[in-house]
Amino acid sequence: MAARPEELIKPAERISGFGNDVWTMVNSAAAASSIQPIANLGQGFFGYNPPRFLIDAAQEALTKVDCNQYSPTRGRPRLKKALADTYSPLFGRVIDPVTEISITTGANEGMLSAIMAFVEPGEEVICFEPFFDQYIRNIHLASAIVKYVPFMPPSADGRVRIPASEWTLDMQQVRQAISPKTKMMIINTPHNPIGKVFSRGELLALGELCVQHSIIILSDEVYDRLSYVPFTRISTLSPEIEARTLTVGSVGKAFYATGWRVGHLIGPASLINHVSTAHTRICFATPGPQQEAAAVGYEEADSRGFWEESRMDMMSKMARFNAVWEELGLSYIDPQGGYFVLVNTSRVKIPASFAFPPEVEERSRDFKLSWFLIMELGVAAIPPADFYSPENAHLSEDYLRFAVCKNDDLLELAKQRLRGLKKYMDD
Amino acid sequence: MAARPEELIKPAERISGFGNDVWTMVNSAAAASSIQPIANLGQGFFGYNPPRFLIDAAQEALTKVDCNQYSPTRGRPRLKKALADTYSPLFGRVIDPVTEISITTGANEGMLSAIMAFVEPGEEVICFEPFFDQYIRNIHLASAIVKYVPFMPPSADGRVRIPASEWTLDMQQVRQAISPKTKMMIINTPHNPIGKVFSRGELLALGELCVQHSIIILSDEVYDRLSYVPFTRISTLSPEIEARTLTVGSVGKAFYATGWRVGHLIGPASLINHVSTAHTRICFATPGPQQEAAAVGYEEADSRGFWEESRMDMMSKMARFNAVWEELGLSYIDPQGGYFVLVNTSRVKIPASFAFPPEVEERSRDFKLSWFLIMELGVAAIPPADFYSPENAHLSEDYLRFAVCKNDDLLELAKQRLRGLKKYMDD
Repeated sequence: MAARPEELIKPAERISGFGNDVWTMVNSAAAASSIQPIANLGQGFFGYNPPRFLIDAAQEALTKVDCNQYSPTRGRPRLKKALADTYSPLFGRVIDPVTEISITTGANEGMLSAIMAFVEPGEEVICFEPFFDQYIRNIHLASAIVKYVPFMPPSADGRVRIPASEWTLDMQQVRQAISPKTKMMIINTPHNPIGKVFSRGELLALGELCVQHSIIILSDEVYDRLSYVPFTRISTLSPEIEARTLTVGSVGKAFYATGWRVGHLIGPASLINHVSTAHTRICFATPGPQQEAAAVGYEEADSRGFWEESRMDMMSKMARFNAVWEELGLSYIDPQGGYFVLVNTSRVKIPASFAFPPEVEERSRDFKLSWFLIMELGVAAIPPADFYSPENAHLSEDYLRFAVCKNDDLLELAKQRLRGLKKYMDD
Repeated sequence: MAARPEELIKPAERISGFGNDVWTMVNSAAAASSIQPIANLGQGFFGYNPPRFLIDAAQEALTKVDCNQYSPTRGRPRLKKALADTYSPLFGRVIDPVTEISITTGANEGMLSAIMAFVEPGEEVICFEPFFDQYIRNIHLASAIVKYVPFMPPSADGRVRIPASEWTLDMQQVRQAISPKTKMMIINTPHNPIGKVFSRGELLALGELCVQHSIIILSDEVYDRLSYVPFTRISTLSPEIEARTLTVGSVGKAFYATGWRVGHLIGPASLINHVSTAHTRICFATPGPQQEAAAVGYEEADSRGFWEESRMDMMSKMARFNAVWEELGLSYIDPQGGYFVLVNTSRVKIPASFAFPPEVEERSRDFKLSWFLIMELGVAAIPPADFYSPENAHLSEDYLRFAVCKNDDLLELAKQRLRGLKKYMDD
């Protein structure tokens, strides 16, 4: 009997259903552009190194046998203690480092661990649109179902600066998305890509709904140190909400080290226990040297004034970059947190003579705009269509997402190039 | 409506079904023993650091922005090229670094990626017993079914040294385990824990069976550099076998750095493509500094004579440690590869007066023996019962697994303590 390779290579359903992703498109455009190097404000990695005291700590950890060999599957005790010490005051309760924290191999693998720990195949997870695209892929890995609820986008009303707080949820739509199969709701604050920081009132309404319907809350707070308005953690709102909330954090986002792959989940022991079990079966353990360096990071960040410096730096980058939209008179969403800015490009007209390759031609306007910007101006930004379900992708077709977590000279280069948009704008 | 925490915390089926694992039992015994420090030959991590040239490379990588930020999801190009250069001669074909290699966050996450990429819920994966326990947990994460086929254990026949090659598979049993739902077969060579290196003939028989029944072969070869007999890679046996084989490797096992979390899969592009997709959705990317250091490792290992030195070192540790079984006259499985040795303790009699805690009292003899050794002699070894399905666990009840990847002084301390077994042995 002969082999049938075409049958063999059929992937499992849980990884199907996504074609070329946005990252592949942006990268291939960036490689094909005649303007080099591209001012790449696409992917949300930092254009600079972690602070020196973390690098020093990681280099020292690399000389220690216990850091180079398997760490405990739930995480290194020193890191868990440093996290408990850091977050107990912020959570307004004493966090037990042994039972209430699980270290994961990046925040993303932490979210996957939470989903795999609790969501059965065919059960439902509520996500708000736009979403960080990896959520959807994680939910599909569990053979579970995503229920989408879109944020209502703000209306520009001729304004250039639109506060991110004006993206709102219709609570009636949220209620309608809940079914007996709803197991989990994913909340993201500060939000990627809309820059919204959920208000206390918004979080309380969502939290009470989850309590009422026995829904686990997975709160992605990886940009918690980059909030430019008062920041509320949903787990602090009531004991009933706390009992069903898992809070996700990221060493990579906190300390400018997205390639280190260390994240953490904090929550009640009854939930964390199962997250740890899932994590152990997914990744077994998390890289040791980076865990030890992260421990030093959390131990020393306060006394070094790192958190405040980090927040001020990013606010100043945001202000520096967004000045170009004020100059151009293009509407942008002024973020309340995080390092992404959404820009409304509806006033930019792509010349009718501009030719797109077929794979871009068939995509929505934001994909075309992204391609156009890379080719004509040498600036890369992300089209948000992939952060929506297909049926709601039209809501984002005028937007592009720029990441400002880059060196100031790159931001200035991007601004200089973006001024070239003027000639493509209507009056 | 009040919250129902007891309902909330019910974990998903895919992570259920395992109680306290063997590692937890061994660790709690080690903590409770009056003999401290324990000579811990339990878990298979190295008792020493990676070679200095890798540590240097990792420390240098930590100063580079691109190493500290997200690496490409399929792996850093330099590491993939170094792997292609290293493995092309060993595979007897030119491996394309771009399409035929995927870097994963440890070999284990690589195996999970392969399983998640191809095995649908309810499909079957064949595993041989004893197995590395994480396989089973990975298969359960995919809501798939394990079909077990036990190795037939060798008969001691009064011998002290029993070659690992005497563990054999009954090919009739393998054939019977195949059904229309069989999607994958996991092979492990050199084998943990039995130390067997599969012969060319054995691999050819398994490979042809997989070709015949369109089964994907997942070949765990993480101990490939520690083979003490000629080593055959199943993917090299025929083009038909190669077309369905994914070969798993481990930077941690190759370079004494189990805590670094870098592994790799090599195979045909048609399979690797889907593995990479699954990996991207599970972990997104793999730690950057360790990938860069691993690249240097593979680039320089041959010219530094590292592979041969590494193999010789481990063989000498194995010989040094196993001398104690010769002294005691206890049968042991002499490994053909890897760093584990299984010892047959049937001649050791636990005194009737020895009291076990309830959670050990109810377990099989190997668990009791492990507990007894830790408490009475201060030496930790792993009971292999968890490397078997419950119905076949009796096959291992006389064995304990010792890891010899430790410093020589620790091996000598363990030997000195193990000599104390003499008084518990029959004549």
